[in-house]
Amino acid sequence: MRDVAAPVLDGAIAASDQIDLTEIVAEGLRRGDECHNRNVATSALLITLLAPAIATTASTREDAAQVLRFAAGNRHFALPFSLCAARARDEAAHGVAGSSVVTAMCGNGRELGVRVSGAGDRWFTGPSPLGSPRLFDGFTHGDACPLVGDSSITETAGFGAAAMTAAPAILSFVGGTPEESRRYVTDMRTICAGESGRLVNPNDGYRGTPFGIDVHLVAEHGIAPVINNGFAHREPGVGQVGAGITRLPIEPFLEASEWLRASAGGGER
Amino acid sequence: MRDVAAPVLDGAIAASDQIDLTEIVAEGLRRGDECHNRNVATSALLITLLAPAIATTASTREDAAQVLRFAAGNRHFALPFSLCAARARDEAAHGVAGSSVVTAMCGNGRELGVRVSGAGDRWFTGPSPLGSPRLFDGFTHGDACPLVGDSSITETAGFGAAAMTAAPAILSFVGGTPEESRRYVTDMRTICAGESGRLVNPNDGYRGTPFGIDVHLVAEHGIAPVINNGFAHREPGVGQVGAGITRLPIEPFLEASEWLRASAGGGER
Repeated sequence: MRDVAAPVLDGAIAASDQIDLTEIVAEGLRRGDECHNRNVATSALLITLLAPAIATTASTREDAAQVLRFAAGNRHFALPFSLCAARARDEAAHGVAGSSVVTAMCGNGRELGVRVSGAGDRWFTGPSPLGSPRLFDGFTHGDACPLVGDSSITETAGFGAAAMTAAPAILSFVGGTPEESRRYVTDMRTICAGESGRLVNPNDGYRGTPFGIDVHLVAEHGIAPVINNGFAHREPGVGQVGAGITRLPIEPFLEASEWLRASAGGGER
Repeated sequence: MRDVAAPVLDGAIAASDQIDLTEIVAEGLRRGDECHNRNVATSALLITLLAPAIATTASTREDAAQVLRFAAGNRHFALPFSLCAARARDEAAHGVAGSSVVTAMCGNGRELGVRVSGAGDRWFTGPSPLGSPRLFDGFTHGDACPLVGDSSITETAGFGAAAMTAAPAILSFVGGTPEESRRYVTDMRTICAGESGRLVNPNDGYRGTPFGIDVHLVAEHGIAPVINNGFAHREPGVGQVGAGITRLPIEPFLEASEWLRASAGGGER
């Protein structure tokens, strides 16, 4: 990663035309990915855009081929890129006075952290959820670490569970039925402030995906966000052991909603 | 094409692991293509599989990059490959005594030709259809040439209109509604001898796509096959002017059905 992939990708990105990562995700949704747990088509698209520059800028042909083979074999190759785009978008939405929109969600294996636009640097926390992941062969429920990592930023940015019905083929990976997928999207629509203008779901009549989890709507409807996430092994280095749809604990969102209301009423700012 | 693309692709294919083109199409259906008029995800997948060998085997790095750029910019890059696979499959099905399954459909701009497994080298013909293609900007209906080319072989092999609902995003290209797409699949299911065991449609409960147009079923139900095809300009060299769903003339299929029945009754063989 350090000696081959990073320099080859750095060089190729510098030599490529500008790549619009939001458009990559939007096209991914048209290609049967929801872009958190299923990134196969999105990754292939990104590879096709980078491959010409990889072929010419890598220090050796074998380096180029090695990176292209690694990328072709990594079903989530596009995810670190789309996570950065989601994070950048969330940064732009953060720090709006009074805003109840969630601008980050992440976990560290023990705690879930939720950040809200109008609440500054505060993190509202609760226990990291484990849910009922579909485990890869050879692993048991006890092997899975509760939510860890920052990839849940997708779920604040209009993809992942919010776009679940865009990816009918993912059900063989995370389990569930098409009806359950529709319910997740409906739940997210109920608690989101709006719809994405750029991420549209071809299996939802091209409607924009639910965008901007609103902690007041979470409180009003009593519906916690769902995320579509992978699960890592409890032991570092083993890697992913499963994936699934996970309902987050509602408490951090309720706490954030209360904090904002108290704050607007003349409380702490 | 002759001086760069062909030798680079030849070399890369020879140096690559075996590529299962039926699996490429099957995965394309899971990625929102129907694999006749929409091949974007399927093409990207094929490019990711060929790119490592292109990077190492092209005679120069610039040749490699040129082919990779061409492939990335060609939304139908995978189609000539999947057409060959469909043709190979049809060849295997051809020449079964008494079989009423269609093993090729094509057009030459004037006539549509239909070949049937149990009818040997005969072609049953009718007028090339024009239908109501959705035209690209700047072209009129008079610019479009009636059905020309051999790509309709897809429609005999379980993809194209038979997999229309797998590609909700294609409606922006060929027009129509999700309900019409479902009707096309139902029509094809009604007149096909079976379902594909490998090509499944994630938007149809993972059911196999309709496979093997049966001229007796066409005659019994009075339903002509629909195809999902591109239209070329009347003048050679201009290229594609539009695309659409086209209902084929039913006469060649009725004629084939009658010929087979007469033949089975002791007629010409």
